[in-house]
Amino acid sequence: MKKNAFYAQSGGVTAVINTTAAAVIETARAYPDKIGTVFAGHNGIAGALKEELIDTSVETDADIAALKYTPGGAFGSCRYKLKDYKTHPAEYERLVQVFAAHDIGYFFYNGGNDSQDTTNKISQYCQQVGYPLQCIGVPKTIDNDLAVTDNCPGFGSVAKFIATTIREAAFDVKSMCATSTKVFVMEVMGRHAGWIAAAGGLAAEKYGDAPHIILFPEIAFDPERFYRKVHDTVAEIGFCVIIVSEGVKNEAGRFLADAGIDDAFGHRQLGGVAPVIVDLLSRLHGYKCHWAVPDYLQRSAAHLVSQTDWEQAYAIGKSAVEMAIAGKSGIMCTIVRDGNMPYRWSIGATDLNNVANQEKKLPPEFISADGFGITQAARDYLSPLIQGEHYPIYKNGLPNYITLENKLVAKKLPTDPAKKETLY
Amino acid sequence: MKKNAFYAQSGGVTAVINTTAAAVIETARAYPDKIGTVFAGHNGIAGALKEELIDTSVETDADIAALKYTPGGAFGSCRYKLKDYKTHPAEYERLVQVFAAHDIGYFFYNGGNDSQDTTNKISQYCQQVGYPLQCIGVPKTIDNDLAVTDNCPGFGSVAKFIATTIREAAFDVKSMCATSTKVFVMEVMGRHAGWIAAAGGLAAEKYGDAPHIILFPEIAFDPERFYRKVHDTVAEIGFCVIIVSEGVKNEAGRFLADAGIDDAFGHRQLGGVAPVIVDLLSRLHGYKCHWAVPDYLQRSAAHLVSQTDWEQAYAIGKSAVEMAIAGKSGIMCTIVRDGNMPYRWSIGATDLNNVANQEKKLPPEFISADGFGITQAARDYLSPLIQGEHYPIYKNGLPNYITLENKLVAKKLPTDPAKKETLY
Repeated sequence: MKKNAFYAQSGGVTAVINTTAAAVIETARAYPDKIGTVFAGHNGIAGALKEELIDTSVETDADIAALKYTPGGAFGSCRYKLKDYKTHPAEYERLVQVFAAHDIGYFFYNGGNDSQDTTNKISQYCQQVGYPLQCIGVPKTIDNDLAVTDNCPGFGSVAKFIATTIREAAFDVKSMCATSTKVFVMEVMGRHAGWIAAAGGLAAEKYGDAPHIILFPEIAFDPERFYRKVHDTVAEIGFCVIIVSEGVKNEAGRFLADAGIDDAFGHRQLGGVAPVIVDLLSRLHGYKCHWAVPDYLQRSAAHLVSQTDWEQAYAIGKSAVEMAIAGKSGIMCTIVRDGNMPYRWSIGATDLNNVANQEKKLPPEFISADGFGITQAARDYLSPLIQGEHYPIYKNGLPNYITLENKLVAKKLPTDPAKKETLY
Repeated sequence: MKKNAFYAQSGGVTAVINTTAAAVIETARAYPDKIGTVFAGHNGIAGALKEELIDTSVETDADIAALKYTPGGAFGSCRYKLKDYKTHPAEYERLVQVFAAHDIGYFFYNGGNDSQDTTNKISQYCQQVGYPLQCIGVPKTIDNDLAVTDNCPGFGSVAKFIATTIREAAFDVKSMCATSTKVFVMEVMGRHAGWIAAAGGLAAEKYGDAPHIILFPEIAFDPERFYRKVHDTVAEIGFCVIIVSEGVKNEAGRFLADAGIDDAFGHRQLGGVAPVIVDLLSRLHGYKCHWAVPDYLQRSAAHLVSQTDWEQAYAIGKSAVEMAIAGKSGIMCTIVRDGNMPYRWSIGATDLNNVANQEKKLPPEFISADGFGITQAARDYLSPLIQGEHYPIYKNGLPNYITLENKLVAKKLPTDPAKKETLY
């Protein structure tokens, strides 16, 4: 029986979330007897709640193909977590009304931890009220902190960008360190888990290579040990390149970005832990320091996508549709590591209950004994994820990223202005 | 008559200064009857003053070829400006001693404004004292502020990186702007001239495209007009992407990075104008803002080099050697724009007196009437410089940049510790 599908992007976007979107749409188009129109939620699940459904069928195959190398979230994303349906049934009732009105029988939700929780709740609610909806969670997060799946689409490309750019900046710093900048600090994303910071460690392959120090959110910041390590590195190597996770905390458990300067010198910092670190070092050592905060650049760097990440992002969208057609529901697709030498992977699935609201931290055995680097185990895990280069198509010297038409379908339900307000 | 050559890298490095170095060495190797060994200065001109000469002849052709896609300055660079030889002859005497001791008859100095001044002084001094030295200035600067030459090797690649990454980040911001970040600010280099900031404007090709606002060092920051423009852009487009040059100054002529917060709220900012701008906007509009400071990432992004820039960086190194062999001296090689539709260029030359200590600002006709964008004239100038992609070679998922052996030749002159101290 033919049904329409709903696909939405949730949470922070990645360089390859649109690759997954393209895979969902292309695969759905390959099964015209099973899936009618793929409706994309305008700004994630909010699009379903507001009945703002984007009609992807008006987009040409060529434009959907161009999505595969376009960063950002083509249909808009949001951070919105549904509450428990037992205590807050209204939004769930509304979702089912919208799905029923548009004959939606497939639900694909492309997001991280919170999104898998949402998918799980919607799946359970629909089962309870008897609305037939195949609910499939499609993982995505640069933070790589989803449970069960070996890794998350989006992470490999951030990892590649950070490892590449810290290596490049280190070549720059090394050139000038005799008479100029001696310390370079780059801040990377990952507020709760140090996966991205760890990935930067891949740039160092032998003694002396940068980064020389990684500050992980998993390790409380110890100023004295850190200063000594910087001092020793400059003395030995001539310069010191540091990766700091935005999530680094002090002994008291406060984010260094908030606490560092405030505590030490009585004035507030505007955000960004890199300048905090540099300020501390400048005062203590007198080194000339530079710092970088790539911020969104790291998660939107579609010009430097990992081919492995790209292939997995596509495969997971394709498998999600195939599993839904095969009758699966209440699951999240996963990436399974089948082997490491050589790296082999496949797509699996897990019950949404296994992943919702879990958070996968960096394992302690991935962090070196001194707390400032990564181990061989970390390299063995991380390295396969950054292999290969998937380049976008350029036009006039710049990546030719696509903006879709994003045509909303006509609403079939009355709009309740009061209710609309409560959706955010 | 066969002579050895001296080549040195000066000032801030670029993604393609090593391409020029490779061109100098490869071209010299092609004329073994004219040029013996190319000695590279260890850390720029300091290498000559200290008699720290790197013997590039021990490097294989393959390793020199790998230089062509390696960022940083392979032989080390420094910022060091020679004083007038009439009042400070000691360093010039020393240079001539070192050159004579190593039979150096060719001098190639790869740098920006200050470096061309140094080349000019050395050229004049050698003429005066009768030491035969062919002195050729080889331009390089990401700032694009050298006179006479149409553009400078190094600039095109920074321009490409900034335009690409601001476009990518804008796709990210657009995805989330309905419920999250509404303003994104990226700080770019260029303390005295807005060339790099202007290049970011290439990312915008039609109405609504980012960047929506560019803050140039050439235009005094007017807070009221800026706030209004941000407000109007968010109201119209839904979000606002801003490029700010690190060199933006307030009406009083102070760098905003130093003055902004200090003046307005009584506390000091740690450097970086992007967080200053974001702080002002957050307080005034209450928007959620994000900011990025790519810092060295922009000038070392060898993973995203402009093919045009790469070709020019190579050609200018090659021509420098060929001109020296042809008997030229006291000149700087230049890039000449022979046509714009299609873009055609060639290598020319100019007397060093024409470029030393000049600074080429962004022409007023490149800045749009409201002061927040670029004109078609700017696009016509900038666009050819970012065309084409020159990718590095990857190994294990990361660019396989080379570190040369950098073997110093044996010193032939006595070291004077007292004098050595004065060299810096």
